[in-house]
Amino acid sequence: MRLSKMFLKTYKESPNDAEVISHQLMSRAAMIKKLASGVYTYLPMGYKVLRKVENIVREEMNRAGAQEVLMPVLQPAELWQESGRWNAMGSELMRLSDRHDRQFCLGPTHEEVITDIIRNEVSSYKQVPMNIYQIQTKFRDERRPRFGLMRGREFLMKDAYSFHIDDECLDKEYQNMKLAYRRVFDRMGLNYRPVEADGGAIGDSQTEEFHVLAESGEDDILFCNTCDYAANSEKAISGIEFHKENEELKELSLMDTPNSSSIEEVSNFLNISKKKTIKAMMYKEEVEKEVRYFMALIRGDYEINEIKLGNVAGAKVELELIDEKDFETLNLVKGYIGAIGDINDKIIIVADESVVGIVNAVLGGNQEGKHFINANIDRDYKAHFVGDIRMVEAGEPCPKCGKELEIARGIEVGQVFKLGTKYSEALGAKVLDQNGREKYLTMGCYGIGVSRTAAASVEQNYDEAGIIWPKAIAPFEVDIIPANIKNDAQKEASEKIYTELLNKGIDVCIDDRNERAGFKFKDADLIGFPVKVVVGNSIEDGKVEVKVRRSGEAFEVEVDKVIDFVVDLLNKIN
Amino acid sequence: MRLSKMFLKTYKESPNDAEVISHQLMSRAAMIKKLASGVYTYLPMGYKVLRKVENIVREEMNRAGAQEVLMPVLQPAELWQESGRWNAMGSELMRLSDRHDRQFCLGPTHEEVITDIIRNEVSSYKQVPMNIYQIQTKFRDERRPRFGLMRGREFLMKDAYSFHIDDECLDKEYQNMKLAYRRVFDRMGLNYRPVEADGGAIGDSQTEEFHVLAESGEDDILFCNTCDYAANSEKAISGIEFHKENEELKELSLMDTPNSSSIEEVSNFLNISKKKTIKAMMYKEEVEKEVRYFMALIRGDYEINEIKLGNVAGAKVELELIDEKDFETLNLVKGYIGAIGDINDKIIIVADESVVGIVNAVLGGNQEGKHFINANIDRDYKAHFVGDIRMVEAGEPCPKCGKELEIARGIEVGQVFKLGTKYSEALGAKVLDQNGREKYLTMGCYGIGVSRTAAASVEQNYDEAGIIWPKAIAPFEVDIIPANIKNDAQKEASEKIYTELLNKGIDVCIDDRNERAGFKFKDADLIGFPVKVVVGNSIEDGKVEVKVRRSGEAFEVEVDKVIDFVVDLLNKIN
Repeated sequence: MRLSKMFLKTYKESPNDAEVISHQLMSRAAMIKKLASGVYTYLPMGYKVLRKVENIVREEMNRAGAQEVLMPVLQPAELWQESGRWNAMGSELMRLSDRHDRQFCLGPTHEEVITDIIRNEVSSYKQVPMNIYQIQTKFRDERRPRFGLMRGREFLMKDAYSFHIDDECLDKEYQNMKLAYRRVFDRMGLNYRPVEADGGAIGDSQTEEFHVLAESGEDDILFCNTCDYAANSEKAISGIEFHKENEELKELSLMDTPNSSSIEEVSNFLNISKKKTIKAMMYKEEVEKEVRYFMALIRGDYEINEIKLGNVAGAKVELELIDEKDFETLNLVKGYIGAIGDINDKIIIVADESVVGIVNAVLGGNQEGKHFINANIDRDYKAHFVGDIRMVEAGEPCPKCGKELEIARGIEVGQVFKLGTKYSEALGAKVLDQNGREKYLTMGCYGIGVSRTAAASVEQNYDEAGIIWPKAIAPFEVDIIPANIKNDAQKEASEKIYTELLNKGIDVCIDDRNERAGFKFKDADLIGFPVKVVVGNSIEDGKVEVKVRRSGEAFEVEVDKVIDFVVDLLNKIN
Repeated sequence: MRLSKMFLKTYKESPNDAEVISHQLMSRAAMIKKLASGVYTYLPMGYKVLRKVENIVREEMNRAGAQEVLMPVLQPAELWQESGRWNAMGSELMRLSDRHDRQFCLGPTHEEVITDIIRNEVSSYKQVPMNIYQIQTKFRDERRPRFGLMRGREFLMKDAYSFHIDDECLDKEYQNMKLAYRRVFDRMGLNYRPVEADGGAIGDSQTEEFHVLAESGEDDILFCNTCDYAANSEKAISGIEFHKENEELKELSLMDTPNSSSIEEVSNFLNISKKKTIKAMMYKEEVEKEVRYFMALIRGDYEINEIKLGNVAGAKVELELIDEKDFETLNLVKGYIGAIGDINDKIIIVADESVVGIVNAVLGGNQEGKHFINANIDRDYKAHFVGDIRMVEAGEPCPKCGKELEIARGIEVGQVFKLGTKYSEALGAKVLDQNGREKYLTMGCYGIGVSRTAAASVEQNYDEAGIIWPKAIAPFEVDIIPANIKNDAQKEASEKIYTELLNKGIDVCIDDRNERAGFKFKDADLIGFPVKVVVGNSIEDGKVEVKVRRSGEAFEVEVDKVIDFVVDLLNKIN
């Protein structure tokens, strides 16, 4: 490609709404252009990246034995009503009516559509297992679309769905997909981690997320550098064990603790360690207008993990903190909540394992300015549930090997998920098994955010000059820059290198624009080509300069040897 | 690909709603599956075809110098209001509101989006010409979606938009695109014609359509087999010239012609040639509640071409026939309409050139059961417009070379169109020209229906056994069929041929399903692989059979020579 012929207008400034690096740099580098909130056009330079990501995903899905299809964007409401997601998805689902007032949604995923096909086309165990995938535009009406391609309303995804006669077969494919995903992200040259994650509303389903590590990530990842343990903070556990303290039980008493509504304040006021205090937090869930209240108890120096809390408490939907009105209804005092008294008739008490370890704890008195001291579980109050509802922190021991856990931010770019029979039961996808008995198919689903992966790569690979693309997904691997296009020797040598690299199968562009050399160097660094070949005045001595974007290394190379040099260099760098 | 691993359930019966061959055969061959009216999933076998069509289009667009982008499906209403199409598109445009009640449409085309990008990014003549394209899912809420992929509501299209400083430059790109389109359809092995078409609402814009010739086509194409003239019937002209008959003008008189409301009846009643009669038809147009009436006059043996009529009469929207109420309002009598009298105060008279040639014509009397005889234009009535408003018929002389025109049915699969400044003026896409003056960019647009082309190929290439794919877009070029998969010699030989053809770069599949030979042969013919290699009992004599789907030819080939034979065969056939 000749950049003089390319639609490529770069910018020194980022768009006003660009909060994250990938949005800023991809906009400046003329890769994406916003059309509406969360809706972007991929310009030629950006679309090249997208296609490379897409092709790697396609190749590895095919290699793993999956079959490509293309399912529709428009999906009839009836199918989503069958699965129950028409209501459950709420306002994230984009809906519309056709000219005959039939309702449709724009697919955010395709479980319903593929299960509908399978229930019609598959009737015997002999026709499975199979894994069907597509690479297609998806829609999700985010409440607050932001971060460019990172959280858009229209985005490109690879979604795959596998069907099996039993869980053992599903597990095989689940492992097969995990390997395929490793190949995908390895080939892209990204620093990533597969991490355990929470199965969400489907409860104890097995799922892992693939995270690209980057400071701007929205998720916290706990991981061990000694073994392969890694988990999303919502799911992470640690090797810490809590044992009951070796101490006499003292008499419970209610104390005045004025102006001590926080753990910090009450531990200062009483001059005791936070480890002797119990933090109490109030949550609720509302299912079909029925409200349930939960009090979460945790040792004062820890934080509550709401996902774990919901799982331990058997919540049916996501828990939320209670509001002012709930405090009134329940007759609770902010900052002085506690589990002692008759409140556990109307409130479900959920204690973290850390709470069980404390003897003679400080706990809210359910009166303004008062705390209990010497509170002891089972003696002074009962918990309906006891379990791990704690956020794990960096430095805690790894649950697998005991070494220290580290923490990093991650961007979720892929997920593998055992769906089980949720959709096959809802839609009636049954087959006859080996014994002629009807059986619901068990399913897995496997997603990769194609556009999100491109953006995540930028979040992980950039410097003050611009993007640094891994070579596998760079728009071009090599950029040839004649410093002065009007100089015949430079122009001729550049064209020759360009043609020869093309013939070697290298994805190369030539910056033959009639612009100053400095302008072209800046664009090259902003766009982030892995290698640039600069043909300047030294061509008169038969020399050109080869520069590596990531390392900053520069090599003076004889023009006769530059083709081999570049081919060799590309084999060595990421 | 091993068919035993492929999601492939073929059917003997077509879906009930499948009216056309492509819909019937692609459904039976497990290529497409309906999700909703006009909305289809492409199953693995069908998606392979779609990708091949897409890739040929992409390669030829790139070769022609166009640049690929991906524009959003979701388009904000504001942009469409700027161009005026938000209202003009009516209920064909699929519309929806997001969670903040902002209105969007699902893109049926992308003139607005690309022009919006260009007006923001392009400011100088130096940045043009450019041609930007995408291959993307489009939406159109057809009143009556039918014919499978031929007229869907969600479909895959290639749409390209070019921008130029002047019409001369636009014309160059227009010609360039026409050549690219020829390469596309040549490579696909389709029998097609580029035909002149009507520029529609934009008036005298130049446009050509590419039609795949097939009986099921919805358009009539007039074409010359001697020269390259071809035109859509709505646009076609012929070499016929009409001269005034050499005959004395006789006196006008009103005659009783009872029960003679048709041309047939009146020519019988009066015992004269239809060529001496004038057919009169009433049309109207309604623009912002203002109605204009038109009377079209044509020689009795010809048919009126409503598109030409609208163009000659300067109609602003599509003309429609008047209804009962209009007849009353205008005080006209059905079957006896004529142009003589004071009616031309309220009706615009448009005469075809054929009418001017008739001396002493028969024309409706505007009274029940009465016709004028010896009616002569200019003497007895005036026409506001005279021009070519006639449907050309097969057998008329070609307007270019004078040889006989032929007629055929065509399926429109592509269109090239000179848009001019319609969108650049509406959206303000201006640049500074060579002299520093502001100028609206002039535009072209170029579409290819990707999914429609796949279906059109089937409409043109099939027989009673199934589809006959041209090899360039066949799901697989070669199908290897071991007649009995349980016979080791057959299985082994089949696997060897399969592997060796794969190594030669042939797109080959092996039907290793445990099914009867007849079942596999039927599937092969239904799906339409160009070549099948049957490995049966004659393998014991070192022989296999190679069959060509299109010609039905069968060859007995020595197994040692079959690879070269097949490679050679593929080079020869379409």
